[in-house]
Amino acid sequence: MRTLRLALAQINVTVGDLDGNTDKIIDYMDRARSLQADLVAFPELAVVGYPPEDLVFKPQFVNDNLERVHQITSASKDITAVFGFVDRDDGRLRNAAAVISDGRLVDVYHKMRLPNYGVFDEKRYFEPGARCPVYVVNGTPIGVNICEDIWVTEGPTKVQAAAGAEVIVNINGSPFCAGKRKDREAVLVPLATGNSVFVAYLNLVGGQDELVFDGASVVLDPSGEVTLQGSQFQEELIVVDLDLEAEFGPKPREPGPATEQDIGESKVITVSGQRTNSRRPMPPDHHPTTYDDVGEVYAALVLGTQDYVRKCGFQRVVIALSGGVDSSLVAAVAVDALGSDNVVGLAMPSRFSFEGSVLDARALAENLGIELRELPIEEPFAAYLSELEPHFRGTEWGIAEENLQSRIRGNLVMGLSNKFGWLVLTTGNKSEIATGYTTIYGDMAGGFAVIKDVPKTLVYKLSRYRNELGTTPVIPENVLTKPPSAELRPNQKDEDSLPPYDVLDAILKAYVEEDKTFGEILDLGFDEATLKRAISLVDQSEYKRRQSPPGIKITPRNFGRDRRMPIANRYRPF
Amino acid sequence: MRTLRLALAQINVTVGDLDGNTDKIIDYMDRARSLQADLVAFPELAVVGYPPEDLVFKPQFVNDNLERVHQITSASKDITAVFGFVDRDDGRLRNAAAVISDGRLVDVYHKMRLPNYGVFDEKRYFEPGARCPVYVVNGTPIGVNICEDIWVTEGPTKVQAAAGAEVIVNINGSPFCAGKRKDREAVLVPLATGNSVFVAYLNLVGGQDELVFDGASVVLDPSGEVTLQGSQFQEELIVVDLDLEAEFGPKPREPGPATEQDIGESKVITVSGQRTNSRRPMPPDHHPTTYDDVGEVYAALVLGTQDYVRKCGFQRVVIALSGGVDSSLVAAVAVDALGSDNVVGLAMPSRFSFEGSVLDARALAENLGIELRELPIEEPFAAYLSELEPHFRGTEWGIAEENLQSRIRGNLVMGLSNKFGWLVLTTGNKSEIATGYTTIYGDMAGGFAVIKDVPKTLVYKLSRYRNELGTTPVIPENVLTKPPSAELRPNQKDEDSLPPYDVLDAILKAYVEEDKTFGEILDLGFDEATLKRAISLVDQSEYKRRQSPPGIKITPRNFGRDRRMPIANRYRPF
Repeated sequence: MRTLRLALAQINVTVGDLDGNTDKIIDYMDRARSLQADLVAFPELAVVGYPPEDLVFKPQFVNDNLERVHQITSASKDITAVFGFVDRDDGRLRNAAAVISDGRLVDVYHKMRLPNYGVFDEKRYFEPGARCPVYVVNGTPIGVNICEDIWVTEGPTKVQAAAGAEVIVNINGSPFCAGKRKDREAVLVPLATGNSVFVAYLNLVGGQDELVFDGASVVLDPSGEVTLQGSQFQEELIVVDLDLEAEFGPKPREPGPATEQDIGESKVITVSGQRTNSRRPMPPDHHPTTYDDVGEVYAALVLGTQDYVRKCGFQRVVIALSGGVDSSLVAAVAVDALGSDNVVGLAMPSRFSFEGSVLDARALAENLGIELRELPIEEPFAAYLSELEPHFRGTEWGIAEENLQSRIRGNLVMGLSNKFGWLVLTTGNKSEIATGYTTIYGDMAGGFAVIKDVPKTLVYKLSRYRNELGTTPVIPENVLTKPPSAELRPNQKDEDSLPPYDVLDAILKAYVEEDKTFGEILDLGFDEATLKRAISLVDQSEYKRRQSPPGIKITPRNFGRDRRMPIANRYRPF
Repeated sequence: MRTLRLALAQINVTVGDLDGNTDKIIDYMDRARSLQADLVAFPELAVVGYPPEDLVFKPQFVNDNLERVHQITSASKDITAVFGFVDRDDGRLRNAAAVISDGRLVDVYHKMRLPNYGVFDEKRYFEPGARCPVYVVNGTPIGVNICEDIWVTEGPTKVQAAAGAEVIVNINGSPFCAGKRKDREAVLVPLATGNSVFVAYLNLVGGQDELVFDGASVVLDPSGEVTLQGSQFQEELIVVDLDLEAEFGPKPREPGPATEQDIGESKVITVSGQRTNSRRPMPPDHHPTTYDDVGEVYAALVLGTQDYVRKCGFQRVVIALSGGVDSSLVAAVAVDALGSDNVVGLAMPSRFSFEGSVLDARALAENLGIELRELPIEEPFAAYLSELEPHFRGTEWGIAEENLQSRIRGNLVMGLSNKFGWLVLTTGNKSEIATGYTTIYGDMAGGFAVIKDVPKTLVYKLSRYRNELGTTPVIPENVLTKPPSAELRPNQKDEDSLPPYDVLDAILKAYVEEDKTFGEILDLGFDEATLKRAISLVDQSEYKRRQSPPGIKITPRNFGRDRRMPIANRYRPF
């Protein structure tokens, strides 16, 4: 029987950790060999981590990465592998895939389609490739391409299929946002069916600054059916036997006429000789871990937090616990990411805190099994007010006094961070960051903003999801039902300053994520004054967002690399 | 005599201020008409301001800009004009130049070379153009192109000259860095001589977030000589008569064979009919304002500060004055930008401040004629220490206690900012930002970081330059001679923690701005341990820089859009 045993190494690499990444690639190559795989594939830019950003402008960095390519190649005895690295020819940088076999570097494929939108800046770094060969691996003709290459119909997949490829191996560094797995399948299915090829889509896994790569690799057969599904948010080696004979007959596909020269040059390169593997044992069963719509976002937050903390070299984190839903969710995520021993909560009540707030924070800490420290802020607050009294005299209580309280908390949490080396996780959600309903240098102070891209309405859903995971809820019911409040003046409620969150979040989606015009959003049925106020708040808060810590992208457009707005900006859409 | 009267409107527009920009364009068009100019040119994307960034993804923004194009066109009676705007065809966005004449939109040129390096992301936004016509304006064949188009030899200038253009009008939004004016001339001279054309290089002027556009427009004749020099950092209308007959003879140049189809399609478009202007009076004399090497940086800081403050809608600024050279320079820049009535200084001494520091701050404030308020930080500091005592007990005095003092200052300055609507200018220099020798949420707290891209050694030069400008020095001599200190522990000096600044700045230039390898920098003669320490400090401080306010770019690579580094990054070059 004519088959290809394909191994997909859905690994979690670290940007810049060339040694660690190389060791991991070689380790997985060894595991694929022991499973008698014909070919093992690794993610896009696996040697350097993705995205390496301006590190690739450092010639030393590129040299160091090229050294690792040789090291990995030397370790490829008796196996064929494909892995991503940064290539350089004639001073031009390329997003490249090495094709190695039995100790030899057989060929290098250069990514042809370079994404330069959203969070991507690949045209800043790389020149596109112009050739898309077909590699014959143990008798099977295979087309290798990289990430964006497969998002276009008129791309290398079409050329490679026309040149005889029966299998397309597409290696990725494709970041998560909610629902992305289905979006990808919608792209892959017509490519598989239209070109009558197996499509093996291999994705990176792991967090890198504001991005989380979700894995969720997938293999489709030529009829577009899922042959194999990889786990979401989990490193793993997936092995599958592709039954080429059943799909294409006993002999490999004949190359068609080379008509696609406008896309790129194709030729057939023999990588490794025919070998008979009819006696190899079946690959191990694979049971992927996947999630529902809310669950995948929660899993993204956990992995994004875990990887940011660990890859930056921290052990413990500290979180200001207000007794509200945002900080409660962040604490739950942190515990799931790092373990309860590595999470410290701080309750920092003020003269305006409801009594129940500290009680809620205590209940949460107890449920999560984390340490809770209490530092009331009254004394520093009184000292500031006395210090500022000659300057503030005759003015009304306002935003200055409110922010001061938040900033005292920021100072206390940073004080413990500096003293004990704990990373500060901030707790602002996307609705707050969008409208500037946050205090810069106050509750925004910290290293990583876990739920920065999570709208408030989704914060509630995620909290309920988490509460249903275990045997008992961890977030107290009172936290989920009381009205949200910043507690910076007597009896303050969020809805005194902001539209109700279900209204606000719908406006924000239309304005921030979908770039709808003012008229289009108004036509959705919002109150005009509410809409104008929400838009003004978004536009006026750009300066705060620019100084906010990174947080995990989970929507199609986050406040980060996805959205690059001027601060000095007089444009108003109404 | 065959001449072209060319007017260059070196104007200061504001991003997003479509009405204000349109009014200004029409006003300058009127002025050019009254001076009987044949053609008046406006900068790149003048209608929307440069760079508009992701605003161009908002369809409403692009629509609103297109409306202004029609408004400007309607106002072009009896004059021909070229101005930049965002064009859209078939849903594709273009960085475009409108060619309008006597109320008609005659043609639209699309920028062909889109910069996507350094601070530029134009491939994120725009599709490149494919045609580069020659426009005949009052009998003179003219090639119009945009910014980057002229930085390449094999570009539209070559095609347009071959197609008969005698004058190239290149409209720009080209940001300043020290020495950029000379760099530009080095590019323009061979284009003028090689193609035997007049080259009119028109640049935007003004500050926009981290960028300053320096104007410094220039007209070169076909022998590469400067015919006209525009001022640096100053809005103005420059008018020049180009003597085409003396250069090219009595008849316009004949078009050559169309051989450059690989660059772009060219054709000749008549914009406005031949007219005789032999009787018009001479254009007004022009006396450009230009600066020496240090002076141009100072002028960039002044304009950048003025425009950030004003374009963001602020009137007054507040600056923490430590008595050190950085805050003294920032205060001087602020006074030159905004006037002494609009600058408030805060002296916030701690238990570790030298007595002379407050005296130096007072002397500076007096010299500059600004208000100085004094807010000692001892009381809040004592309150924090008491609050934290149970947590810090048994630990040694360290970075936590040092940062706390800086963060109290940050809170006080932000308190006054929130109360009175003053923008906070921060005072960190590039050497500090590079090495993380700053306190996040402390001295880094504020809206605009005036000298963020100025190395400490240049801070001293700029201070001395400013002191020599007036009749008496404004920055006290003691400030310039005492050893720099953060004054956060007893008898602290910067050089306890950092290499001497002349050594440090040389390392930073090689490592940060020039991407030299570790070996290359070592070969420059630095001590290995010093070099390793400096590099480690840079690499470990990325998280702080990501949360810093924007500041004015004055070097070839600033910490901002120019340098996009991952935070989670394990790469070490040694």
